[in-house]
Amino acid sequence: MKSYQEMSKEELLREKESLEKAYKEYQKRNLSLNMARGKPSAEQLDLNMGMMDILHSESDMFTEDGTDIRNYGVTDGIPEAKKLMADMMGVHPENVIVCGNASLTIMYDTVSRSMTHGVCGSTPWCKLDQVKFLCPVPGYDRHFSVTEYFGIEMINIPMTEEGPDMDLVEQYVNQDDSVKGIWCVPKYSNPQGIVYSDETVRRFAALKPAAEDFRIFWDNAYVVHHLYDENQAEILDILSECEKAGNPDMVYEFASTSKISFAGAGISAMAASKKNLDFVRESLTIQTIGFDKVNQYRHVKYFKNLDGIKAKMKQHANSMRPKFEIVENTLEREIGGLNIGSWLKPLGGYFIAFESLEGCATAIVQKAKEAGVVLTGAGAPFPYKKDPKDSIIRIAPSYLTVEELELAGKVFMTCVKLVSVEKFLQEK
Amino acid sequence: MKSYQEMSKEELLREKESLEKAYKEYQKRNLSLNMARGKPSAEQLDLNMGMMDILHSESDMFTEDGTDIRNYGVTDGIPEAKKLMADMMGVHPENVIVCGNASLTIMYDTVSRSMTHGVCGSTPWCKLDQVKFLCPVPGYDRHFSVTEYFGIEMINIPMTEEGPDMDLVEQYVNQDDSVKGIWCVPKYSNPQGIVYSDETVRRFAALKPAAEDFRIFWDNAYVVHHLYDENQAEILDILSECEKAGNPDMVYEFASTSKISFAGAGISAMAASKKNLDFVRESLTIQTIGFDKVNQYRHVKYFKNLDGIKAKMKQHANSMRPKFEIVENTLEREIGGLNIGSWLKPLGGYFIAFESLEGCATAIVQKAKEAGVVLTGAGAPFPYKKDPKDSIIRIAPSYLTVEELELAGKVFMTCVKLVSVEKFLQEK
Repeated sequence: MKSYQEMSKEELLREKESLEKAYKEYQKRNLSLNMARGKPSAEQLDLNMGMMDILHSESDMFTEDGTDIRNYGVTDGIPEAKKLMADMMGVHPENVIVCGNASLTIMYDTVSRSMTHGVCGSTPWCKLDQVKFLCPVPGYDRHFSVTEYFGIEMINIPMTEEGPDMDLVEQYVNQDDSVKGIWCVPKYSNPQGIVYSDETVRRFAALKPAAEDFRIFWDNAYVVHHLYDENQAEILDILSECEKAGNPDMVYEFASTSKISFAGAGISAMAASKKNLDFVRESLTIQTIGFDKVNQYRHVKYFKNLDGIKAKMKQHANSMRPKFEIVENTLEREIGGLNIGSWLKPLGGYFIAFESLEGCATAIVQKAKEAGVVLTGAGAPFPYKKDPKDSIIRIAPSYLTVEELELAGKVFMTCVKLVSVEKFLQEK
Repeated sequence: MKSYQEMSKEELLREKESLEKAYKEYQKRNLSLNMARGKPSAEQLDLNMGMMDILHSESDMFTEDGTDIRNYGVTDGIPEAKKLMADMMGVHPENVIVCGNASLTIMYDTVSRSMTHGVCGSTPWCKLDQVKFLCPVPGYDRHFSVTEYFGIEMINIPMTEEGPDMDLVEQYVNQDDSVKGIWCVPKYSNPQGIVYSDETVRRFAALKPAAEDFRIFWDNAYVVHHLYDENQAEILDILSECEKAGNPDMVYEFASTSKISFAGAGISAMAASKKNLDFVRESLTIQTIGFDKVNQYRHVKYFKNLDGIKAKMKQHANSMRPKFEIVENTLEREIGGLNIGSWLKPLGGYFIAFESLEGCATAIVQKAKEAGVVLTGAGAPFPYKKDPKDSIIRIAPSYLTVEELELAGKVFMTCVKLVSVEKFLQEK
């Protein structure tokens, strides 16, 4: 098939007519398909039903050190849960705090605490005229919501296939002392599935921040979320790299079991240097009487160790892989040679990022919606929801069935083609 | 027996000698008894083991409106949990948000949010030169820790047997616009077990705060925590009283099941006006992907309704009542007529507050500790841990067995008498 670029006006008009016909057929079907949220499917959630009643007798209520998991106490997590999460994150247990059901909450609380109490003794950020965060884009919308909520200025940093543009990161971090943080999803990034290269991680670790209270917010959300048995990405451990580079306190790492056990009822963890964790613990003893240790222990008893987690992630992958493949195949088949969009094939994570022609994303998402296919709002993966090129669309394949995805993918492709044709026609 | 006041120096010296002998006998026994923490006993925690595996099949995973409790979503609590907590608090479900495992965290987050974002549109407290909270004393140490952590100035308000001294409260709140809040435990107050009278509640509701962002922090921690089948205290509903008085937005109410289900793995709730809750929800959508709905639903399925909670609280009372009685009996028997201490007999809650002679509390707690009986630190129930009279000692009977309490009570009494005798001797 000719690419749209090569088509004459007449050819484009004919293509448009046929696409509109197909689009209307889809509309008639009253579809209701949601590719917006990176939610595990019911099938995935069912994988962990054994966790529900794994603790049931009085003898299950005590950790190795004799702590009654039902009672008050232990603000930074039971030792067994620290070990489990540390092994998953590839760090030492003493560098880990285990918290409640969402790493997002740890990140929010970390920013909030920095606003009111500074960072390990620095001036509280709310007392400063300007606080800035670097935001590799496209990125995770909820990261950006946190910094926006606190009035922190966000600066876009373009992503490359090796991670954020490190020249730009170094320039900002090393020269501007109002730059206090950067949001990173280093493995299988949201939404592109990019894996930070060793070079990128090392350059992060070697930053020489102008601000002593600059921190890397390293959201290792997809640390064990591989799609394939082979080609599993591994990244360098940022904590030890920072330590080697003489920056032991420069990073907070976050992770959770939200997409391992239950999205709403998992456990979360933060890893950092002792100095950072001591500062966090100071506020935790004020904020909480201890996180839910029963749920922490439930995870320990159920997964047992990192191998248990890996085995479970294999089952998740078996559910996820066909979904990614159907989306990728549909994209390839429908617009493979058309030059109206591009995408990467992630080896893990929860998303595929589709890059349309410039200025088309909003129109595509809107068109899909009017045909019953909900996609993440265009702009969502950018600070202030503003995609400068209006071209990135995040696709979340996890929640639908393969059959639904096939259909949703076709609708989506029709919308992509239709909006692209219209763009070319306008330019004729 | 003669009161110490009536004794001659010689009599006091003889008494001292005999007390010291008894004290040394206790010391020899290498006791290790903790009356410091308001923790449920293992026996109480065992009451709820049926909750552990009450959810186990896939069909248990969906709320009435079809929400999968395992997945992301529903930031302010599942409807069934709102209903349960609302019934317990005596408010409407639409005025309730259900959160994670600790109401303390909701309170902390509420203060933190006020610091960074103000209250429903007011100036963020961190931008103000001065923010003050009124603190009825003696009160709950963790309340005071929260306000102290945020650098909020705390002002002592003496408690009467009807609640805080309302003349003083009105004076501060109605005249000083830097007074932004007051900590209240209106039912079975921590540590005295005082119940706010209807008159007190109505005067609270009728406050005319100088600050529009003044809020009552109404920690209804012991709302169903009665000790007796009869003589159960009820207080007026502060939300509807505030509404009637034209102050619908002036109060946040908090409660939890920490001392109903599990101290570390309960659920918590906040009740307030729609305007207040909408403002809270705005930040919740940024802070969380939803609290642990599995645990919320576990509570709903287990307790079913308010009657279920009340039935469980009767079992708790059966465990707690003998403990309170043994402490009260020991106090009465040992120092009943001596005029060296006083206490109230709470009808509910978790504590007994012992008031020693002025200037004796620190010494008594220290002496008890040296004999192996740990009490809450003297001063703890006061802002900045400073008891102006050094006389209040909080006794927490829940965690020990009746036998242990009897022994701990005797040791405590010996210490009280010894320190009191020394005080009288110094004055001779």
